[in-house]
Amino acid sequence: MKLKYLHTMIRVKDLEKTMAFFTLLGLKETKRYESEQGRFSLIFMAPEGQEECPIELTWNWDGDDGLPADSRHFGHLAYGVEDIYATCQMLQDAGVTINRPPRDGHMAFVRSPDNISVELLQMGDRLEPAEPWASMQSSGNW
Amino acid sequence: MKLKYLHTMIRVKDLEKTMAFFTLLGLKETKRYESEQGRFSLIFMAPEGQEECPIELTWNWDGDDGLPADSRHFGHLAYGVEDIYATCQMLQDAGVTINRPPRDGHMAFVRSPDNISVELLQMGDRLEPAEPWASMQSSGNW
Repeated sequence: MKLKYLHTMIRVKDLEKTMAFFTLLGLKETKRYESEQGRFSLIFMAPEGQEECPIELTWNWDGDDGLPADSRHFGHLAYGVEDIYATCQMLQDAGVTINRPPRDGHMAFVRSPDNISVELLQMGDRLEPAEPWASMQSSGNW
Repeated sequence: MKLKYLHTMIRVKDLEKTMAFFTLLGLKETKRYESEQGRFSLIFMAPEGQEECPIELTWNWDGDDGLPADSRHFGHLAYGVEDIYATCQMLQDAGVTINRPPRDGHMAFVRSPDNISVELLQMGDRLEPAEPWASMQSSGNW
């Protein structure tokens, strides 16, 4: 039987904050479905040229109190980036905590507004260690 | 800055059970990394022809007590299937609970051995409603 990967869905409390976060990273909205009756929206976002691998944001208009505070069991979403230092700097300037700084020029972890863990991986060879990242401490978990 | 989707990672308690579950669905191992020092394995699995959209199974050899019992915050993994009734029948025969039966011939939800929610969507047009699915009750959440 044939199988096709469709998306990874994550639930969001504040759609605007979450879309701003993933837009910062470089994802774009590719599809949207809104249900007046069900009072929810589904927003699909993907990197350019990768419309086949979207995340789906599920936003319940009246909130979703059943959401746990953390979602470590899930693991993370992972994205390759062209310059991990530039990406982390851009995120930090926007107020995002770099939970696992790219000390090795290769890997970093941040969290979405809903505490969804997001891994960033330098594409191609790792970069030379550089400050302030090389001596920055980790914080939280991911 | 260019961005590339890499994978969705989920943590697993029992690698064998989880690989059996995703193998049932039709995913295949595409890559594996084992760390003797860190005492963990990373196993990538993807549908055939979609090696670009893998899930990554993280398995800590000594267990991972920090995992919450549920991971609803995560949302789910979604896979398109050729015949949703045949897929659900096959899973049920293998002992998997169909939490949200495909009453509408279109959508079903099951859970991996770690309670990771997995959505199954009929590819193309929805199927005609058919028993036993049409009158099967939902159980649990997803």
